[in-house]
Amino acid sequence: MTIKDARTPASNQDEQSIQGESSTQHPMQPPTEAGKSIGWHKAYVEGSRPDLRVPVRQVHLTNGQSVTLYDTSGPYTDPLTETDVRRGLSPLRENWIVARGDTEEYAGRPVRPEDDGIKHTSPRGGNLRNLDAVFPGRPRLPRRSRDGSAVTQLAYARRGEITPEMEYVAIRENVDPEVVREEIAAGRAVLPANVNHPEIEPMIIGKRFLVKVNANIGNSAVTSSIEEEVEKMTWATRWGADTVMDLSTGRNIHTTREWVLRNSPVPIGTVPLYQALEKVDGRAEELTWEIYKDTVIEQAEQGVDYMTVHAGVRLPYVPLTANRKTGIVSRGGSIMAAWCLAHHKESFLYENFEELCEILAAYDVTYSLGDGLRPGSIADANDEAQFAELRTLGELNTIAKRFNVQTMIEGPGHVPMHKIKENIDLQQEICDEAPFYTLGPLTTDVAPAYDHITSGIGAAMIAWWGTAMLCYVTPKEHLGLPNRDDVKTGVITYKIAAHAADLAKGHPGAQDWDDALSDARFEFRWEDQFNLALDPDTAREFHDETLPAEPAKTAHFCSMCGPKFCSMKISQSINERFGGTAAEGASPEEVAEGMLQKSKEFAASGNRVYLPLAE
Amino acid sequence: MTIKDARTPASNQDEQSIQGESSTQHPMQPPTEAGKSIGWHKAYVEGSRPDLRVPVRQVHLTNGQSVTLYDTSGPYTDPLTETDVRRGLSPLRENWIVARGDTEEYAGRPVRPEDDGIKHTSPRGGNLRNLDAVFPGRPRLPRRSRDGSAVTQLAYARRGEITPEMEYVAIRENVDPEVVREEIAAGRAVLPANVNHPEIEPMIIGKRFLVKVNANIGNSAVTSSIEEEVEKMTWATRWGADTVMDLSTGRNIHTTREWVLRNSPVPIGTVPLYQALEKVDGRAEELTWEIYKDTVIEQAEQGVDYMTVHAGVRLPYVPLTANRKTGIVSRGGSIMAAWCLAHHKESFLYENFEELCEILAAYDVTYSLGDGLRPGSIADANDEAQFAELRTLGELNTIAKRFNVQTMIEGPGHVPMHKIKENIDLQQEICDEAPFYTLGPLTTDVAPAYDHITSGIGAAMIAWWGTAMLCYVTPKEHLGLPNRDDVKTGVITYKIAAHAADLAKGHPGAQDWDDALSDARFEFRWEDQFNLALDPDTAREFHDETLPAEPAKTAHFCSMCGPKFCSMKISQSINERFGGTAAEGASPEEVAEGMLQKSKEFAASGNRVYLPLAE
Repeated sequence: MTIKDARTPASNQDEQSIQGESSTQHPMQPPTEAGKSIGWHKAYVEGSRPDLRVPVRQVHLTNGQSVTLYDTSGPYTDPLTETDVRRGLSPLRENWIVARGDTEEYAGRPVRPEDDGIKHTSPRGGNLRNLDAVFPGRPRLPRRSRDGSAVTQLAYARRGEITPEMEYVAIRENVDPEVVREEIAAGRAVLPANVNHPEIEPMIIGKRFLVKVNANIGNSAVTSSIEEEVEKMTWATRWGADTVMDLSTGRNIHTTREWVLRNSPVPIGTVPLYQALEKVDGRAEELTWEIYKDTVIEQAEQGVDYMTVHAGVRLPYVPLTANRKTGIVSRGGSIMAAWCLAHHKESFLYENFEELCEILAAYDVTYSLGDGLRPGSIADANDEAQFAELRTLGELNTIAKRFNVQTMIEGPGHVPMHKIKENIDLQQEICDEAPFYTLGPLTTDVAPAYDHITSGIGAAMIAWWGTAMLCYVTPKEHLGLPNRDDVKTGVITYKIAAHAADLAKGHPGAQDWDDALSDARFEFRWEDQFNLALDPDTAREFHDETLPAEPAKTAHFCSMCGPKFCSMKISQSINERFGGTAAEGASPEEVAEGMLQKSKEFAASGNRVYLPLAE
Repeated sequence: MTIKDARTPASNQDEQSIQGESSTQHPMQPPTEAGKSIGWHKAYVEGSRPDLRVPVRQVHLTNGQSVTLYDTSGPYTDPLTETDVRRGLSPLRENWIVARGDTEEYAGRPVRPEDDGIKHTSPRGGNLRNLDAVFPGRPRLPRRSRDGSAVTQLAYARRGEITPEMEYVAIRENVDPEVVREEIAAGRAVLPANVNHPEIEPMIIGKRFLVKVNANIGNSAVTSSIEEEVEKMTWATRWGADTVMDLSTGRNIHTTREWVLRNSPVPIGTVPLYQALEKVDGRAEELTWEIYKDTVIEQAEQGVDYMTVHAGVRLPYVPLTANRKTGIVSRGGSIMAAWCLAHHKESFLYENFEELCEILAAYDVTYSLGDGLRPGSIADANDEAQFAELRTLGELNTIAKRFNVQTMIEGPGHVPMHKIKENIDLQQEICDEAPFYTLGPLTTDVAPAYDHITSGIGAAMIAWWGTAMLCYVTPKEHLGLPNRDDVKTGVITYKIAAHAADLAKGHPGAQDWDDALSDARFEFRWEDQFNLALDPDTAREFHDETLPAEPAKTAHFCSMCGPKFCSMKISQSINERFGGTAAEGASPEEVAEGMLQKSKEFAASGNRVYLPLAE
C-alpha cells in the first residue's frame, strides 16, 4: 500500500466536485506554516482503485521517522480539500453504490413541516419555519433497493462479495479484506452505510477490529441550535469519534439532521422514536406504527446509517421495573413502556419488527437494538428487567439477520465493576456475538460532573472483554447538555478507554503508538510527545504552564525533577553502558561478567552517571 | 455510637488548646448561612472515651434523612474549631501516645542549614536562609521508643492490644475493632502513625477496608513555594486524600515538611532519598548510608508517618533494565541504580536494611517499600526487572515484620489492563498479603494531559483486585507540576476509582452512598444530588450552566429532555401503578394479573403517563 501525501495535488474527481467558490476554510485544519503542516499531516492510503483512498494521520517525528494513526476527522483536516458546510461533503461512495446497480432513485416522501415539529395549529410559536435553516446543498433524490431485496453489506458479505466499503475498512484496520467480509457475514461486525449517505468514510464495528467510539449530539426542547450541532459533529470527529448519534428532541429535528448528514464523514445514528414522539406532540400513547414507520422512512431517505430501535421493551417486562431504584432511564424505553401501559398492548415495534426489517434492508440501515430497560443505577444493574429485554434482543437479532439487516445490540448503563463481565458474556451468548454497543457502563453513581470518568473505567473494561463500540459519556451527563469542551472531554476519555482495550486485546499494531510515544518520552523529544498525544494541544499547554520557555521543549529534563537530577538521564546512562548485557538467553554468570566489565568502563569514564546541565 | 454535631459546642480540651488569638478562618469550611451550614456539616462519632471523636461528613437531605460519609478534611471543615496554619493542628493523639509510657522525649538531632539544601559554600544563592519560613508553632521535642523496642501499632496488635488508634479506625470503617487489630497483626493492613505526628486522625490501609487515596505534593528545583505546598495538602484532604506524600526535591525541604506535618490531619509520607540526594548536591555516587540514616532520623523526628525506601533496587537487577523501552523511571530507583553502578556495590539500603528497621520501629514509621524498577511504559510492564525487585521486596517485608515495622509495598506504574491482575496476584503472594500501594497503573501511554484517566482505569481495577491504597496521578503527569486544580482533579478521579472498587469488593455499606444519590436523582431532588456528589460545587455549576434559574433546581425535569418529556417521570408513574406487582416470589400469572388490574386503573385515571409541566 502506498500512502499518498495530501500535500501532493490529487486528481480525484470527487475532490473536483466540491471545489466551489463559496467554500470557506474550516477552522480545524492542522497548524500550517507557509503551506506546510507542522508535526503531522493528513495522508491517504490508496486501495485497489483510484477512488479508494483511506485517510490517515501521519505524525512526523523529529528523529525522521513517522507514525501513521487512524483518522476520523474527514476532509476538514485536509488542506487540499476545500469544504463548505452549506454544500456538504463530497459523496465519495456514490459511484460504488450506483455501480452495484441494485438501487434506484425515487421521488421520496415529501418533507412536511411537522417533520421539524411545526404544526399550523401549534401553540408553540406558530407556523413560521425558518427557511434559511433548510439545507441549501445540491438537490438529491433518495435511493432505495430496486426490487425490495436487501442492499446491505451483510447481504453482499454473505454472497462472498468484498465491496469497496469492505476494502476501505480493511485498509483502515490493517487487516485482510477477507477478514472483514467474514466478520460481517457472520454477524460479528457491522459496516453502517446507508445508500443515502454516500459522504461517509466507511468504518467497521466488531470485536475483532479497533474499538470504536460514538459521540452523541442533538438539540433538546430547552437549548441549542442547528449550527451548534453541526459544529459539535465536526468537532467530535476531529477528536476521534467514529460515529455520531443525533439525538435531537426539540424543534428542527429533520433540518438539523440534514445538515449533520450532509457534512458528516462518519456514520450517523438516530433514535427515530424521539422524532415520532414530537410528531404526536409528546403524547406517548398517541404513537402509532404508521407514524413510527413514516419517520423511519423519512430518516432512511435522508441517509441515517443506524437506528436505535427499542423493540425489546415488551409489555410483560414493564412491571419488572416497578421496584427498581431508578425505574426506566432510557428515553426510548420509557416512551415504549408508557405506550404499552396506556394501551395494555404488546409493543408496536415488537409486533411489526419484520416489516421494519424490510424497510431497513432496502436502504442498508443498521439496527442498533436499544436497551430500553438498561439500569440507571448501581442498584438496578444486571436485574431481571434488563436480562429479560436482552433475551428478546437476541430473538430480534435472529430475525434481523434473516432479512439481511446488519445489527448491533445496545448495552448498559450503570454497572459495578464485578458485574460487567457477566453482562457482556451474556450478551455475546444470547445475541450470537453481534457487536455490543455500550454506554459506559458507569461504575458508581456518586460522581455527577465526572461521569466521563466513572463510565470510562467501565467502558475500558467492557471493551477489553469484547464490546465493539462505546457510546461516550460527557462530564455533563445527568446534569445538562454538553458544550464543545464537554464533547471533546467525552471523546478523548473514550478514545483512551478504547485504546486501552485495544492494547489489552492485543490488537495487532495497537502498541506501536504507545511505543512511539514512550520512545519520544525517554529521549526527551518533547515535540514528538505532543504530536503523538491523543490531545496534542492540551499536552503542549500543560508542559508550557510550568516551563514556558521555548528551550525547555528541547531540554533534556522536565519540570518534575528539574535540570539537577533526572531519572530518565540516569536510565539513558545505564542503557548506553549495559545495553545488550542482559540479552535474551544470557546465563546469570554471563550477565554478571558483562556487567562487571561495563561497570569498570563506566568507573573509568569518570564515575558520574551524567553531567548535570546546570552548574 | 452517637454522632455529635460539630455545631454543638464541644468541651474537648484539645480543641481548647488551639483557640489562639492569631487564628484565622480557614477558607475551606462548608458554606454557612447565619452560622448554619447548608446541605452538609461536620459531625463526630464518639468512641469509648471522650477524646476519641471520629469526624464524619453528614449530608442533610431535603426529605429529612441524612447520609453519613467518611471525612478526611480535618478540623478545617469544622466551624467550631479555629485553625491557624502558623500554630498547627491540635495534637489529638498526644495523650494516647504518652499514656502508653513506652516512648520518651529527647533532645533530637539539631536542624542544620543543609537540611534545607543550604550550604555556606553553595553557589546557588548563598547562605541566606529565609527565617520567616521557619515554622513558628510551639516548640516540641521529638519522641522515640524508651528502650529501643518497637512502639508500633503492629507490635501492639500482635500483643493483642486494641489501641485508641485502632478503635478510631474501626469507627471510621464501621467494623469491629478486633478486625482492625487482626488485620494489622497479620500484616495485611497498616495504620501509619508516627509518635511524632500526634496531629493525625488515624486511618487504616488494608484490603479489608475502604480503598484509600494518596495525593503527592512537593516543590521541585524548578518551581513552587512552602505556602503552596501547605495549601495543596489541605486542599487535597478537603477533596478526600487519605494520605499525602511530600516529594519536595528543591530548597527548604525540611521546613516545608515541618509546615505540612504540623498542619496535616492525614498521615504524611516521604522519600528520604530525595532529601539525602540534596545533601550531596545531587551527586548520587556521593550518597552514603550515614547521610541516608541521618535523613531518616531527621524526618522520623519531625513525624513522617511512612517512608518510601527503595531497598529492592539491587545491583544485579540494574542491567535487567538496560534493554527496556523507558529504563528506570522511578527517581528513587534511578538514584540507587546510579549509586550501585558508580561503586559496583550492592545497595546500601539493602545491606543496612535491618538497622533501618530498628530506627523505623522506634518511631512507628511505616515502610512503603518502593518499586524503583516499576515499568514506565506499556512495553516494560511485568518484566523481569520489575518482578526481580518484587521478590526482593517480599524478602524485605519478612525482615521488617521481624522488627515489628508496619510495611506496605509499592506497585506500578504503566501496565496494560490484561497484565494488571497478574501483577497484584504476584505481589499478594510474594509479600504475604502486605498492603499493595500502587501508582495507577496507567493503561496506555498515548494520552499525556489525561493520565489521571489512563491511570484511573487501572487504579479502579487493581483496587478491586486487592490494592489497599492508590497513589493519585494528576493531569500534569509527565508534563509539569500540578497546581491546585490538578490536585483536585487527581483526588476526585482517584476517589471515583477507590469507591468503584469498594462497590465491586462488596464493602459493607459502600453502596448506601450510590443508593442515596440515585434515589435523589429519581425523585428530582437536585440539591440532594449536588450535596451527595463527590464534588458538589462542580455538579451544581454544570447543572446551572444549562438551566440557571433557581426554580430549575426544584423542577421535575432536567435539561436533557426538557419539561415536555421525561423518562424519570414515566418511571415514577410505572412505579406508582405497579409497585409491588413484581414482588419477589410472585408467579408469572400473578404478575400478569396484577399488571392487567393496574393497567385498567391507569387507563381509567385518564390515559396519560404524566402531565407535562408546560402547555
